[in-house]
Amino acid sequence: MSNINNDLKLFNELAKVLLEEERVNPVAKRIDAQELYNVLDLSLSDEGVPDSEFKSVMTDVIEATPKTATNLFFNQLFGGRQSKAVLGDLLAVMLNNSMYTYKVAGPQVGIEQEIIKRSCKMIGYGENSNGTFPTGGSMSNYMALIMARDVADPKFRNEGKTKNILAYSSAESHYSNAKNASFAGIGRNNVRYIETDEFGKMIPSKLDDQIQKDIAAGFTPAFVNATAGTTVLGAFDPIDAIADVCEKYLIWLHVDGAYSGGAFFSKKYKHLLKGIERSDSFSYNAHKMIGTPMTCSIILVNDKKHLSGSFSNDAEYLYQTDGDDFNLGKTSFQCGRRNDALKFWTLWKSVGTNGLEQIVDQQFILADVARNYVRNNSDYQVYSFDDSISICFNYKGIDANVLCTALYEQQETVVGFGKFREDTFIRLVTINATNESENLLNFFKVLEDFVVKNPKLVGLNSAVLDA
Amino acid sequence: MSNINNDLKLFNELAKVLLEEERVNPVAKRIDAQELYNVLDLSLSDEGVPDSEFKSVMTDVIEATPKTATNLFFNQLFGGRQSKAVLGDLLAVMLNNSMYTYKVAGPQVGIEQEIIKRSCKMIGYGENSNGTFPTGGSMSNYMALIMARDVADPKFRNEGKTKNILAYSSAESHYSNAKNASFAGIGRNNVRYIETDEFGKMIPSKLDDQIQKDIAAGFTPAFVNATAGTTVLGAFDPIDAIADVCEKYLIWLHVDGAYSGGAFFSKKYKHLLKGIERSDSFSYNAHKMIGTPMTCSIILVNDKKHLSGSFSNDAEYLYQTDGDDFNLGKTSFQCGRRNDALKFWTLWKSVGTNGLEQIVDQQFILADVARNYVRNNSDYQVYSFDDSISICFNYKGIDANVLCTALYEQQETVVGFGKFREDTFIRLVTINATNESENLLNFFKVLEDFVVKNPKLVGLNSAVLDA
Repeated sequence: MSNINNDLKLFNELAKVLLEEERVNPVAKRIDAQELYNVLDLSLSDEGVPDSEFKSVMTDVIEATPKTATNLFFNQLFGGRQSKAVLGDLLAVMLNNSMYTYKVAGPQVGIEQEIIKRSCKMIGYGENSNGTFPTGGSMSNYMALIMARDVADPKFRNEGKTKNILAYSSAESHYSNAKNASFAGIGRNNVRYIETDEFGKMIPSKLDDQIQKDIAAGFTPAFVNATAGTTVLGAFDPIDAIADVCEKYLIWLHVDGAYSGGAFFSKKYKHLLKGIERSDSFSYNAHKMIGTPMTCSIILVNDKKHLSGSFSNDAEYLYQTDGDDFNLGKTSFQCGRRNDALKFWTLWKSVGTNGLEQIVDQQFILADVARNYVRNNSDYQVYSFDDSISICFNYKGIDANVLCTALYEQQETVVGFGKFREDTFIRLVTINATNESENLLNFFKVLEDFVVKNPKLVGLNSAVLDA
Repeated sequence: MSNINNDLKLFNELAKVLLEEERVNPVAKRIDAQELYNVLDLSLSDEGVPDSEFKSVMTDVIEATPKTATNLFFNQLFGGRQSKAVLGDLLAVMLNNSMYTYKVAGPQVGIEQEIIKRSCKMIGYGENSNGTFPTGGSMSNYMALIMARDVADPKFRNEGKTKNILAYSSAESHYSNAKNASFAGIGRNNVRYIETDEFGKMIPSKLDDQIQKDIAAGFTPAFVNATAGTTVLGAFDPIDAIADVCEKYLIWLHVDGAYSGGAFFSKKYKHLLKGIERSDSFSYNAHKMIGTPMTCSIILVNDKKHLSGSFSNDAEYLYQTDGDDFNLGKTSFQCGRRNDALKFWTLWKSVGTNGLEQIVDQQFILADVARNYVRNNSDYQVYSFDDSISICFNYKGIDANVLCTALYEQQETVVGFGKFREDTFIRLVTINATNESENLLNFFKVLEDFVVKNPKLVGLNSAVLDA
């Protein structure tokens, strides 16, 4: 029979298996997708399995699961493991509170609010600001869009669209902007994609031109999404100049900092977010730059009345005690909501704001190491720019898709590719702050050694390699 | 300096603190909301704190956090602790995969799909069915509404509303139905609330009448939400009869089983969901009836083409290998997505479908115990009905709000109140399957003893008590 003490013991044993696997097989014992159900016993059936068999199956699953915390994982906009944040999230699982009411979440409400209020202060939002923890970066952008929509067309909430609402974002922004326009009832066709400069940053004058045209044509511009860290290039849109345009036409400015918004923790790099205090909403993912486990997304709102304006609800069966300031469900998209705040708080409490700054700075240091390496090596063609933690390059003209796929399928290292305008290239992300410079240099060594050993696999003949 | 081994050790120590607290203070050392920031050091500052101080603060936080796993917590539609599910969720934190691609989630993709496919089969959906894990029950209903909207008005995705779409739900359904109509661009005013019978169940003939009127008035009925376990009474809408109406007018039928949809695991109680295989979508929360940690929500879709129709997206930077069937991000609301499947899978694998059935059946057994107790005791007025795990009652005519608040503030037991038509009453939820009958009887003893000892606090004078 299961009980919590036995299962905590089993957890510790399996965690040990995982940590040892990360050491000896830092990518994973990869199983081809088509073979998955033949190789692993993932089946569920009428009878359960005893703990001994369960442990054996779980060990197989752990071995085959991609390792995101090791120094050979560079594939996503997250990676690594801040152990004090892991501690907080493990405790959140054990505590199992839902964040809607003080009655059920108690001090966890204060923990969430402390993070929100401290973040608001750091970016320069005023006394009326507040925020919430959506379940991801897409959801953060979505909540911002809903608020903007409801400000521009106050009847939208109750009646649906009554004006020809438009949203604006750069061509390099996250794909959630298009999906969200569909979900929010604005329509994908009513998103205007603003041209970017050669660095992938939105051009404010192009935004201004487009808005003028649209107003003249009878549309209602409602929402501008600026990005702090675009998905592929890691570019920062010029917030201050975009804020000028938004103020001129009274349009909601949201800054999507899911990827690199955490830069506000760094005295050295917060200038990349210059003007952020002029935005109406700002979101960042602590599971990206801060390194907490998935998911830990925060949206901050300059005037909290918009949060309640769009998301409030009355539910007598739920909100029964303690007052609205402590019943966080009144300003969330959802009803029941997992405690995503504790993991961020345990890390922040433990390392301090100064420690978070070091975590962020380290990512830029690692990016400099990687960027210098590719810039100073003529085998590499470089596609990225300063002040980004996405290092984009090709190696010896090898097709990026082919090389990434081969490195992944051979379980050498995990990295992805991206595209900007006509170019496709490998995108190396230096977001794992537990890495050291040597781990980045090792990545290039792994890649280069792999190409030497597998010229055919990457579409090279040995003559090219010798050249 | 933090490292994962030290912090796993610290986790074990703090988990021990929690388990001991649950034993000696099964409600919590409650802190009044207004005193919270004075009593606990929740502040975040430039400097971090050493582990010894951190542990001390965390101990205080754990002591003051409401305990949802004990046998005195009856407040929400979740509670208790299935330890094999906790094990899975702890491992999910350590593994930290994002569920959008096979490249990053590997076998976790198969784990999620196994749960979905097994669930689809059990409710009688066919070969074309599939599903996903939204981040909660509200989000599940929301995804269903978006799909229904896009079927009824195929231009909606790209252009916004082009028809006068309507959604239907019972007056007793979850408040997310109204919020979701706003979020989806349909508008709160375009939700029709259908009358319920004396048991709180939607009346199908009233639904039919309303739809006929609306069609005659030029509206486009698009979505019917039936509820399996209403929020307050725990009532099951008659799905089969509602499906007749939906088929007649070709309207999307969603069954919101967030609360009690898990009844399909029980041979004895699955009749409460009769007709479920005729629905277009069905959602249930494993963090409710199944007892996993928050959140674990599943939406199943009878024809999976609607999932991709409404939620698919192209993102070349993300979907690079392994094919669409294994890249789950193509059918989710979000981009990055936490692994909410593993905790359900570890429990199911370990106890089998038979074990899940026992978990569900136990809740109905406990409900019978509680219902019989209040029915057979003239001090109680009973407001609930058979086949529900919400036991609704008042005691000695005491105001439900007053009594619940007093029990909570004195930390005797945590329970909430609800409303049906003109009546307000205490709602006791028997969802914690780790409880035994004696725990339910103990709840009543706690309540009755409290009233005897605190007549003034609950607005009684002792004369009434003696009567």
